[in-house]
Amino acid sequence: MFKNEDTAGADKPNSDVNGRKSPKSERTRASIRQTALRSFRENGFDATTMRQVADEASVSLGNAYYYFPTKNHLVQELYVEVQEAHRASVEPLLATSTDLVERLGIVYRQGLAQLAPFHKFAPGFLSAMISPKSPLNPLSADSLPARQITVGLFREAITGAKNRLPGEFEERMPAALWLSYLLLSLYWSYDRSAGQRRTERLLEQGLRLLRVALPAIRMPFLRAPLRSILDLVAEAGL
Amino acid sequence: MFKNEDTAGADKPNSDVNGRKSPKSERTRASIRQTALRSFRENGFDATTMRQVADEASVSLGNAYYYFPTKNHLVQELYVEVQEAHRASVEPLLATSTDLVERLGIVYRQGLAQLAPFHKFAPGFLSAMISPKSPLNPLSADSLPARQITVGLFREAITGAKNRLPGEFEERMPAALWLSYLLLSLYWSYDRSAGQRRTERLLEQGLRLLRVALPAIRMPFLRAPLRSILDLVAEAGL
Repeated sequence: MFKNEDTAGADKPNSDVNGRKSPKSERTRASIRQTALRSFRENGFDATTMRQVADEASVSLGNAYYYFPTKNHLVQELYVEVQEAHRASVEPLLATSTDLVERLGIVYRQGLAQLAPFHKFAPGFLSAMISPKSPLNPLSADSLPARQITVGLFREAITGAKNRLPGEFEERMPAALWLSYLLLSLYWSYDRSAGQRRTERLLEQGLRLLRVALPAIRMPFLRAPLRSILDLVAEAGL
Repeated sequence: MFKNEDTAGADKPNSDVNGRKSPKSERTRASIRQTALRSFRENGFDATTMRQVADEASVSLGNAYYYFPTKNHLVQELYVEVQEAHRASVEPLLATSTDLVERLGIVYRQGLAQLAPFHKFAPGFLSAMISPKSPLNPLSADSLPARQITVGLFREAITGAKNRLPGEFEERMPAALWLSYLLLSLYWSYDRSAGQRRTERLLEQGLRLLRVALPAIRMPFLRAPLRSILDLVAEAGL
């Protein structure tokens, strides 16, 4: 729901009879969005406010609220932008390898690379994201568009590999790997080593362990508990 | 540092020449502490304030600040109380088993049982705890007393078991298990199933997997990556 329909001013949004936004309206929306995304990257979550974004985009506060009912809507735009950049950086690299663990490594590493500019703002974003009730929580319904991109990258890494997993694992793994990526991001947000090299080492050692441990998932006595754990992990936040 | 030294009033703290607190001063401190801990359990983190605690304990706000310079100091008292109750419930049960996985299960299960009353307040506590800069973060220097209790319980579960691990793992495991307990608590805080049964199932399946996978840590090709991962995990937040 729109919080504020005060749309007075020259840049008032308008639609044609088919509900399509006019080019001007699209430009105004794009300008507010770009201003906010730049501010999140330069100033972080706490210091970016609707008023400051409206001022910098030279629109009225009411007009900014017309396009983005809350600051959280702008953060969702950021999530999607970051994950689309993640996908764009992953796609050409996935084409270079058919090894499962190498392909997963590409998705994790490129994901961390996209997060890098936000490290100094991690405390503010984390505090806003962590509550199970927060619309900014990565598990929330509002975060679905960004989540689908990342889960999709893990699915692509798996299905395009020459070493395939048993089907029951292939369908369960993308959501579990995405959650492991969130946990790696949590570790990264606490990582005070230069350039967060410690997180990179944790990732590389984790991939090394996965490489040697992966053949074991075919063992009957490991399959049942692993399958249950993957199901329960995928249900996190439901 | 004390934020406020306004100690006017009949319940003014006082010490003898050796710096020992008088019995009256100790009673005032205990009363403020007990009032705050009860409020955290009944009202949660957000709704518990220094002013309300002072009012309910019938002391001046200045006096409350004399004993507890910030609300965070009272939360640390809560952490320690919860972990001491955790230890008290674990000790007699550990005496009943010498099996490593069963002993670890006792520590995890009793830990979750202590958290149960706080489930409905998890969002408020999580938001206050999650920032790497928060003194309430479980990894912070301020949280050391509570952390030491829990890490000590995992150490006790390991060293008292008849099935011992290689020494290099025994020294690294308690901190890593404690971190896994934090992650389980995070899952629990998001768990909306009745009585958080889903978290219990995740724990039981995890213990089942640990039981079948544990012998593998002696394999040379698993040992090196596992050791590195345990070291990196133990460095989280440093």
